[in-house]
Amino acid sequence: MDTREVLTQLKNGEITVEEAELYFRRQPFEELGYAKLDTHRKLRSGFPEVIFCMGKVDKHLLEIFGRLYEAEGEVMGTRAAKEQYELLKEQYPEISYDEVSGIVKIEKTDKKHIGCITVCTAGTADIAVAEEAAQTAEYFGAHVERVYDVGVSGLHRLLSRLETIQKANCVIAVAGMEGALGSIIGGVVDKPVIAVPTSVGYGANMKGISALLTMINSCANGVAVVNIDNGYGAGYIAAQINRLGEAR
Amino acid sequence: MDTREVLTQLKNGEITVEEAELYFRRQPFEELGYAKLDTHRKLRSGFPEVIFCMGKVDKHLLEIFGRLYEAEGEVMGTRAAKEQYELLKEQYPEISYDEVSGIVKIEKTDKKHIGCITVCTAGTADIAVAEEAAQTAEYFGAHVERVYDVGVSGLHRLLSRLETIQKANCVIAVAGMEGALGSIIGGVVDKPVIAVPTSVGYGANMKGISALLTMINSCANGVAVVNIDNGYGAGYIAAQINRLGEAR
Amino acid sequence: MDTREVLTQLKNGEITVEEAELYFRRQPFEELGYAKLDTHRKLRSGFPEVIFCMGKVDKHLLEIFGRLYEAEGEVMGTRAAKEQYELLKEQYPEISYDEVSGIVKIEKTDKKHIGCITVCTAGTADIAVAEEAAQTAEYFGAHVERVYDVGVSGLHRLLSRLETIQKANCVIAVAGMEGALGSIIGGVVDKPVIAVPTSVGYGANMKGISALLTMINSCANGVAVVNIDNGYGAGYIAAQINRLGEAR
Amino acid sequence: MDTREVLTQLKNGEITVEEAELYFRRQPFEELGYAKLDTHRKLRSGFPEVIFCMGKVDKHLLEIFGRLYEAEGEVMGTRAAKEQYELLKEQYPEISYDEVSGIVKIEKTDKKHIGCITVCTAGTADIAVAEEAAQTAEYFGAHVERVYDVGVSGLHRLLSRLETIQKANCVIAVAGMEGALGSIIGGVVDKPVIAVPTSVGYGANMKGISALLTMINSCANGVAVVNIDNGYGAGYIAAQINRLGEAR
Amino acid sequence: MDTREVLTQLKNGEITVEEAELYFRRQPFEELGYAKLDTHRKLRSGFPEVIFCMGKVDKHLLEIFGRLYEAEGEVMGTRAAKEQYELLKEQYPEISYDEVSGIVKIEKTDKKHIGCITVCTAGTADIAVAEEAAQTAEYFGAHVERVYDVGVSGLHRLLSRLETIQKANCVIAVAGMEGALGSIIGGVVDKPVIAVPTSVGYGANMKGISALLTMINSCANGVAVVNIDNGYGAGYIAAQINRLGEAR
Amino acid sequence: MDTREVLTQLKNGEITVEEAELYFRRQPFEELGYAKLDTHRKLRSGFPEVIFCMGKVDKHLLEIFGRLYEAEGEVMGTRAAKEQYELLKEQYPEISYDEVSGIVKIEKTDKKHIGCITVCTAGTADIAVAEEAAQTAEYFGAHVERVYDVGVSGLHRLLSRLETIQKANCVIAVAGMEGALGSIIGGVVDKPVIAVPTSVGYGANMKGISALLTMINSCANGVAVVNIDNGYGAGYIAAQINRLGEAR
Amino acid sequence: MDTREVLTQLKNGEITVEEAELYFRRQPFEELGYAKLDTHRKLRSGFPEVIFCMGKVDKHLLEIFGRLYEAEGEVMGTRAAKEQYELLKEQYPEISYDEVSGIVKIEKTDKKHIGCITVCTAGTADIAVAEEAAQTAEYFGAHVERVYDVGVSGLHRLLSRLETIQKANCVIAVAGMEGALGSIIGGVVDKPVIAVPTSVGYGANMKGISALLTMINSCANGVAVVNIDNGYGAGYIAAQINRLGEAR
Amino acid sequence: MDTREVLTQLKNGEITVEEAELYFRRQPFEELGYAKLDTHRKLRSGFPEVIFCMGKVDKHLLEIFGRLYEAEGEVMGTRAAKEQYELLKEQYPEISYDEVSGIVKIEKTDKKHIGCITVCTAGTADIAVAEEAAQTAEYFGAHVERVYDVGVSGLHRLLSRLETIQKANCVIAVAGMEGALGSIIGGVVDKPVIAVPTSVGYGANMKGISALLTMINSCANGVAVVNIDNGYGAGYIAAQINRLGEAR
Repeated sequence: MDTREVLTQLKNGEITVEEAELYFRRQPFEELGYAKLDTHRKLRSGFPEVIFCMGKVDKHLLEIFGRLYEAEGEVMGTRAAKEQYELLKEQYPEISYDEVSGIVKIEKTDKKHIGCITVCTAGTADIAVAEEAAQTAEYFGAHVERVYDVGVSGLHRLLSRLETIQKANCVIAVAGMEGALGSIIGGVVDKPVIAVPTSVGYGANMKGISALLTMINSCANGVAVVNIDNGYGAGYIAAQINRLGEAR
Repeated sequence: MDTREVLTQLKNGEITVEEAELYFRRQPFEELGYAKLDTHRKLRSGFPEVIFCMGKVDKHLLEIFGRLYEAEGEVMGTRAAKEQYELLKEQYPEISYDEVSGIVKIEKTDKKHIGCITVCTAGTADIAVAEEAAQTAEYFGAHVERVYDVGVSGLHRLLSRLETIQKANCVIAVAGMEGALGSIIGGVVDKPVIAVPTSVGYGANMKGISALLTMINSCANGVAVVNIDNGYGAGYIAAQINRLGEAR
Repeated sequence: MDTREVLTQLKNGEITVEEAELYFRRQPFEELGYAKLDTHRKLRSGFPEVIFCMGKVDKHLLEIFGRLYEAEGEVMGTRAAKEQYELLKEQYPEISYDEVSGIVKIEKTDKKHIGCITVCTAGTADIAVAEEAAQTAEYFGAHVERVYDVGVSGLHRLLSRLETIQKANCVIAVAGMEGALGSIIGGVVDKPVIAVPTSVGYGANMKGISALLTMINSCANGVAVVNIDNGYGAGYIAAQINRLGEAR
Repeated sequence: MDTREVLTQLKNGEITVEEAELYFRRQPFEELGYAKLDTHRKLRSGFPEVIFCMGKVDKHLLEIFGRLYEAEGEVMGTRAAKEQYELLKEQYPEISYDEVSGIVKIEKTDKKHIGCITVCTAGTADIAVAEEAAQTAEYFGAHVERVYDVGVSGLHRLLSRLETIQKANCVIAVAGMEGALGSIIGGVVDKPVIAVPTSVGYGANMKGISALLTMINSCANGVAVVNIDNGYGAGYIAAQINRLGEAR
Repeated sequence: MDTREVLTQLKNGEITVEEAELYFRRQPFEELGYAKLDTHRKLRSGFPEVIFCMGKVDKHLLEIFGRLYEAEGEVMGTRAAKEQYELLKEQYPEISYDEVSGIVKIEKTDKKHIGCITVCTAGTADIAVAEEAAQTAEYFGAHVERVYDVGVSGLHRLLSRLETIQKANCVIAVAGMEGALGSIIGGVVDKPVIAVPTSVGYGANMKGISALLTMINSCANGVAVVNIDNGYGAGYIAAQINRLGEAR
Repeated sequence: MDTREVLTQLKNGEITVEEAELYFRRQPFEELGYAKLDTHRKLRSGFPEVIFCMGKVDKHLLEIFGRLYEAEGEVMGTRAAKEQYELLKEQYPEISYDEVSGIVKIEKTDKKHIGCITVCTAGTADIAVAEEAAQTAEYFGAHVERVYDVGVSGLHRLLSRLETIQKANCVIAVAGMEGALGSIIGGVVDKPVIAVPTSVGYGANMKGISALLTMINSCANGVAVVNIDNGYGAGYIAAQINRLGEAR
Repeated sequence: MDTREVLTQLKNGEITVEEAELYFRRQPFEELGYAKLDTHRKLRSGFPEVIFCMGKVDKHLLEIFGRLYEAEGEVMGTRAAKEQYELLKEQYPEISYDEVSGIVKIEKTDKKHIGCITVCTAGTADIAVAEEAAQTAEYFGAHVERVYDVGVSGLHRLLSRLETIQKANCVIAVAGMEGALGSIIGGVVDKPVIAVPTSVGYGANMKGISALLTMINSCANGVAVVNIDNGYGAGYIAAQINRLGEAR
Repeated sequence: MDTREVLTQLKNGEITVEEAELYFRRQPFEELGYAKLDTHRKLRSGFPEVIFCMGKVDKHLLEIFGRLYEAEGEVMGTRAAKEQYELLKEQYPEISYDEVSGIVKIEKTDKKHIGCITVCTAGTADIAVAEEAAQTAEYFGAHVERVYDVGVSGLHRLLSRLETIQKANCVIAVAGMEGALGSIIGGVVDKPVIAVPTSVGYGANMKGISALLTMINSCANGVAVVNIDNGYGAGYIAAQINRLGEAR
């Protein structure tokens, strides 16, 4: 923080009391009435804000989408229903939509993708969550490799892709059912593993709680966990880690 | 059941009404007042009754132990405290005690051990439960192989023992923490796997509930589960399966 | 494994480095992009792969169904919606569908069914799960007997079918509500019992969790448990056990 | 209530305002400062108050014990530690103590025991709770039969005592582990069954929660449940039901 | 059981072996293939079987309804959807339907209702469950009083109906939300209280689990609990208790 | 209560026995058959009764709405579906409806709003619950300030509104997801904070249970919690607290 | 905040840049290394900091106790073990200790106690928590009334103390077991009720979770809840509410 | 993997079949009988193995400690009891012990600590877990900053240390009670946050489950979670992330 600098400028008459006051009272967000848009986020975090579309009313979605597009020159939304995509498409024909993950986006075409994040899934039903993670990480500038359907019940599938898994700066392990994939991968890499439990399964799976518990209790080192089905959260922290690995 | 035979004998005067009545009213257990000793168990199940020692008062333990020893010529107890062992040893100097699993027993020396059950553990802390399973199965006449400390965080350890695991009629997979061992083994064998969650772990493990859920939700085929720390139960059903595999 | 043999052949110039490498890197699955089809499964496990239809998109279901049919000459899917059946029927008019259990299949007509598995249910509402278990076991070559609606609230119904229950190599006990059937059957047979909790019930049943807990805590010997409503899993492990009993 | 009568007496000057006010403000309990002793309970419920000893400090236990003894000519306490018994014995040498259930009491010797309550247990470890139920019911004037160790894993034991179970006005079913006893008994009697889950068991039993859920989900008719280990509560309501059955 | 009598008759040649065998093998139920209809239930329990309609397919519902009507001259079903009622009405125009509780029935008109059961609810939303309880008890021959909307947040409402509550042989307390009604009523009557938690509420109520826990932990004496929303179960056991109270 | 006064008047002949009896037997509610309308509530609590619309059948909603309107000259309902609003609008065209919170009301226009309650939300999805709280408090006569979308992931937004938060007599903190808002606000104000967990979130949020636990475990002083999504309950108690702060 | 004032003074040369910087960077706590003592708390909240003694090591407890005593002229600690009291007594002979609640304190003798908070308990076992609440509120300057052992199973006890309950600015309802006391009191007062669940009970009480759920689901208005056994938290917020009621 | 290279060498006669076989069959662990010591771990992961001391028997602890010390020239153990420390000290007088965290270690003195990890705690009771994290990360070569007692109930404490928090490559947030610290820190940094729930708290905290849920549901970006009290796991993954940040 430049507190002292502002105060010194004020002291020296280079700025007015009002300008100094503005500094201490500034609102790094845009007030929409029903929401406070975090327009300073990219500045603070290096990553632009992403819209969680599910449950947003049409009017709000359109306004937020527009404001962010305007501010960043690109915009992405997760968990968008097809209806929401069609609503946005009317106004933004350049928008794209991935039905599997529910991601809508208008992305800059010249984006550079650095480093490597590998996203693995245990089964095919986990791909929706995995794509949310992968595309979030790509939107935030990471290079992503996909290794899908390598669950623990057929170990040879995972072993055949070991190289792709081991070369990443960070591995995202996406699994429902008993969620053992995180531990397996944690045991064969020397990089951080972000485990994402999914709600895939039935019965005592309890909508992903079982996979979450498995991952939290992992006996492997280097595994940390995000919420059930939270592909976005995994993509975000993996992109942070990947950025660190490429930073110097 | 030989209902018709009994009735025919009665009709023919070969047995009396009282004898026939006895047949229909017989009590295949020995009444001790506080307990009903299942002396017909071996007849019905092929396996003699085993004593769950934990919480039994001294007087009852001594009486039950004696009755079963007398009836079978051998006797086994699980979860015996050292004090219970010492109490029994005074009267039965030939008794042996395994401190790790808490098993006390006097076993026939000429017992034949058939087939093969392989007992695996994820870590060293799971060995207490594994030994309860292994020794139970041995007491019931099975040949047992032990493969310990082959948890999923170091897959190479498990792969180095694959042959021993794959040759068994039935594999017992004992694991705490995240309990993924059951799924891994289920994926590499073509025989039934009995998974035993253990209370080894801490925090969100919730005394084994997490490992239990993992095993119940296993995405591998051929895996069924018994209660947390229930080595005895796993040894029992594995011995039944192993016996089937050697029966013909 | 024949590692030494491969290496010796290489040494002797009988195979090339590339061929040897293939051996160590072989992929015993067919890569479909979105899935890795386990075409070696029958080789490894003796049982062909079965399709879990629920949630599969039409295109994938058709492709997987076709590939497996081609590979095995028969194919089975569980939890198929009526729409999925109709989709498949267009292309495979010889397909059959069981509305109760949601099983679709084209089965070889000359299959031999060996041994005996008895499938019991507590109530009529448990039959959907029981049929998934029974037909899975039959598809895997087991002879199956059905004993339905013999729940513990009317013990005489179960006792009247005791013979059919006791003659099996393995009994599957399917029950919702309080799920006591597993314990009862465990007490009257000397063969392994696979207990399947169902989500039948309401209130404190919590969609089968109550029945699952009952079965896991069973005081009877020889009972192991699979996931809630997991008829397929029970049928699979029972078929393994039954095969063992007929193997020699 | 005799509201009108009191008001009429007041109107007629037969009683004073103060006396009438007393009627409307009367306190049917004795104020001890730290507790309000329910000395009208026997009047209201027909059963005298019983002391829950666990956790009571010595001074309070002695005072409450004395007051109730004085008021009723007999007194009973549940869950008393041996130390509490010895404390009370100093002052009341006529007191008796049951180590299994932890009941202390001084009981009138000429008490008549009416009707019949049958108390069953699944195992021997459930007897402590069963005795709390049985002795509570006896203290409240019921005749009690005991049928112990008749759990569902050996059905023949229960069937051999069917007559004693079926003749009761009310059956108390005490069981831990999977707690199936309540359903079994509910299926063979036409009288109310009070099911008492116990904390006997381990692992997924979760200190009786599993048995409680089993009993609450019972598929048998005529079964209602009290709290885990609540023998007193079961004995109380069973005594109420038994009294009804003998009332006319 | 008249075992001895049968045996003696056989001995004396009064009956044949086949007849005796029949006695020991008799099946007190009617085999429908998919179900075993308990036609001896009324004999055993004094109450006819009642149909749980929810989830029954049309063909089965019609058949079971018809068989029971034929056997008893009256018939009742709980949790019937309006469509099921209309289906049954086509064939049985004399059928009645209560939309609130979902009960369908054809009841004998000359039924005598004995004793008294009082059914209380905490709120108006609990009435559906209360009516299931009340009409079940009435179908089984009990006289029933209704005291609705007397929840603990307005104690004066309950106190104004105390007389009706206190005069019953058995009180049924139906409550959702925090479910305190059972304790309150347990404190003001000297007869058994059957508490029924309902799924009425939201949030931390967890579909009735909260109310169930409240009732199981009741600090009042003489309260036992049935499953969430289980009006039928409460009506059944209350009818048993009421019958006892009128039996002599 | 004026018990003595009534009794003295009776004594003095100023009132009759019947009038006195009325006093002791009065029913401070209106009996509708299916419900007991609490028409004395305003007298007792200072706040009129509010209708919980969800699940009420049309006929009952209309009757209750009418009775309360008549009695109070204004009326409010929470959780009203749009259909219920339209039903009421036919008869009461002056009714207003807020789609976000589902509140219907006809409110007196000259109501004075005293003191200050500040209602905060963590996100925009929590506004529905917040509005239920805010409008309830306004209906009960409180002045309300709204501070929305100030969740803990962007602390600067909350700090920019600190003054509005600190000036209130009582703050209502509404938050889903991890529900940390209650603790944050508890740490910056010296007035009571009523925390309302919402069901906003997914996965391990378990429909608000996670946020509820966070708030109950708050390490900040001066925070108490109401049920998940219970905006009405928060508005009610906040209005009581605010009234206290303005009372003298 | 006086941001503008500070800035204007700086502008005017009345303060230096360093003094202004101090204003914006000031640390309103005392750094002890292992802890940050909140010495500005009384300024911010009106209540001095209280020590949570449980688990504090001797050295830290002594230091923190001393610092706060020095700063405030009085000091209070909750959940102090007897050993901790004796440790403190050596240095502060004027300290007092309440064995029931574990509160240690040195309190100013001339403190004025304003308004009224009534603390109620359901049973005698809840008094420890109630005293923590009562003495906390008294330490913060509130007048407190105690109404103990008025649980819902004997309603007449509570009704006899109604006046004391109704006259308070805020009522604290402390209850374990089924925790219904909060709802009952919420129904008879027009002031805020702070409900404190306690861990008193056994079995399905689950160490207070059951009572917590009851209170959170309360159907009475004006009830908010704090953590299990959190007497301090209840006393704190009640003192805030009481202060509001006396503020003007 | 260098599979091809090994094969080519064999082909070329540079190595023997036995040597090649060794390559494919090598066991990267040391077999101790009861355990498989992972001596290749440092090679694979860059970090040496650390001993989880809790529950290890003396003989095993001594042997494992010695082997690792010998192999690495340094050795560390977590969760060591004082007795274990004293046992090890007899043989290794150079050992050090930290009573707060229970860490024993003999560490190389010339270790270089790179980058920066900041470890924060909400309260002083969380320091034991925080030190396990901090010292683990230091042992693995990271530079660590400590910021303790900055919980959310006094936000100014955290804000005063913002610079130290924001400069780290990775922040570890350790918190019990409601566990909100993770979200707060996630909102003010642009680096990955590893959140560690602790078992600090009481009541509805449920030994850390509440804090775990809070952290998993965090609304802040860039937060992932490890098991309750798992300081070691947090230190491990943070050290991996920090290493990435310094790698180039």
